[in-house]
Amino acid sequence: MIHSLSELVEKAKHKPKQKIAVAAAEDEPVLKSLKAAINDGIVTPVLVGNKAEIEKIAQTIDFNLNEIEIIHNDKGADISAQLAVSMIKNGGADVLMKGFVSTGALLKAVLDKENGLRKGNTLSHMAFFESPYYHKLLGVTDVAMNIAPDLDTKVHIINNAVEACHKIGITTPKIAVIAAVETVNPKMEATVHAAELKKMQWQDCIVDGPFAIDIAVDKEAAIHKGIVSEVAGDCDVILAPDIEAGNMFYKALNFLGGANSAAVIMGATVPIVLTSRSDSETSKMLSIALAAAMD
Amino acid sequence: MIHSLSELVEKAKHKPKQKIAVAAAEDEPVLKSLKAAINDGIVTPVLVGNKAEIEKIAQTIDFNLNEIEIIHNDKGADISAQLAVSMIKNGGADVLMKGFVSTGALLKAVLDKENGLRKGNTLSHMAFFESPYYHKLLGVTDVAMNIAPDLDTKVHIINNAVEACHKIGITTPKIAVIAAVETVNPKMEATVHAAELKKMQWQDCIVDGPFAIDIAVDKEAAIHKGIVSEVAGDCDVILAPDIEAGNMFYKALNFLGGANSAAVIMGATVPIVLTSRSDSETSKMLSIALAAAMD
Repeated sequence: MIHSLSELVEKAKHKPKQKIAVAAAEDEPVLKSLKAAINDGIVTPVLVGNKAEIEKIAQTIDFNLNEIEIIHNDKGADISAQLAVSMIKNGGADVLMKGFVSTGALLKAVLDKENGLRKGNTLSHMAFFESPYYHKLLGVTDVAMNIAPDLDTKVHIINNAVEACHKIGITTPKIAVIAAVETVNPKMEATVHAAELKKMQWQDCIVDGPFAIDIAVDKEAAIHKGIVSEVAGDCDVILAPDIEAGNMFYKALNFLGGANSAAVIMGATVPIVLTSRSDSETSKMLSIALAAAMD
Repeated sequence: MIHSLSELVEKAKHKPKQKIAVAAAEDEPVLKSLKAAINDGIVTPVLVGNKAEIEKIAQTIDFNLNEIEIIHNDKGADISAQLAVSMIKNGGADVLMKGFVSTGALLKAVLDKENGLRKGNTLSHMAFFESPYYHKLLGVTDVAMNIAPDLDTKVHIINNAVEACHKIGITTPKIAVIAAVETVNPKMEATVHAAELKKMQWQDCIVDGPFAIDIAVDKEAAIHKGIVSEVAGDCDVILAPDIEAGNMFYKALNFLGGANSAAVIMGATVPIVLTSRSDSETSKMLSIALAAAMD
């Protein structure tokens, strides 16, 4: 059982250093988080982007670029994204990180049928929380990529989540499919999806629902409501019904829950670190650690 | 500015005691929470229901029924709901509380066109949180009644929320209309609704959005993203896009956020206390206090 995100940092430290290709590295918050991750001995970066701009920012944040590989490109961030992606495709790096490039341009490079990093059918956002109010790491998906996933897409999102769990050492993750209630109601699609997902054959994971959050994370609440399930009160992953619900939950824990989080995009051939401006410094560093800890 | 739910308890204590009519009072958790509220001097109850069963439960929880008004009915909980409602309609009580009766039966009595407590077009759930991570009371609506409210229903929900705020002394509530992003995207109905709601003429409140939760509750996050709004980072009420998103947020704060909450149903002629089995004892008592504090 993994209790904290610092365990992931330790895991990343004690394995061969992962190479992280940064697309358009000329970005201060990204370079700051990389500096912290390098100091912790977690990753070896390859900075793809405008060398002069990277050096300028590095100087202002006191980031020593000696011994740091830089692949210079001054033809724009989209090209930097393509260069970083093709470097990974050729085995030159293990993790992709978004720098000063739009998410759209980065994902376009990742999803390119010939030169990209496609694997399955769905990319999804996978976050792991360390909360003072939960007894172990709590995974949450998808709070940022898929707007209103249909049943099929939810299957892919679960598969991505299970892969992420396995890669960090959670062997048989318990997935709670979330809705507002525990009974199936045709007027509430989330409950219908949950019942369908529960019925499917799953390997190396346990899927149950529909559960409201109390049932997923609190054993007593489950007992009160007479729900018997090994997922109830002990889930490893929360599957949100859609992006609004997932996003509200994710930000409730981050901004009103005293929790720390790390997140990656799953579903490509390598984990992708895609931090947002509103993420804290700590959260950005932890996201790099999460990607680097993956086997 | 109201900082804590205990201020509502104090407010309820220092005004003429509100009479609370309990529909089907033969319910142990409900009688327990009433006992606490009576001890705090918050309400005067009128227990409607099966007298023998009420007395039996009262004995096991050491609840002294001397001086407590009981209206006996042994013809079932639905009739108790109707009796409690008509008592309020005749001015005999100020607040309605759900006991051992289904929510459906209670609301049927409330919504009855001739004998009910109808006022506007929409009943909605209104919760107030005291969170260690926010600087004042945080309202959240609607996490339990309206499944997928359309634009018109969202207007009613906001009106109910504003009324609730006014009744407890928040004079010009700031309402944050929540989505997963801050830009309007036709594929995300929540953002379209938010833009429409923002454009409308509002009285005695400020409505802004679409905001993700970070923007609504964290001023720095808003500055980072370049959003200028007096609602950003200082909202009084979170308007959730739908029941799943609202419910996940509500339960994140209650079960993973170290917060306390109180809630009532708004939109009828009186506030309705409708606690759920998974609510804590404290939360049930605070919900009674919230209703009793309303002017």
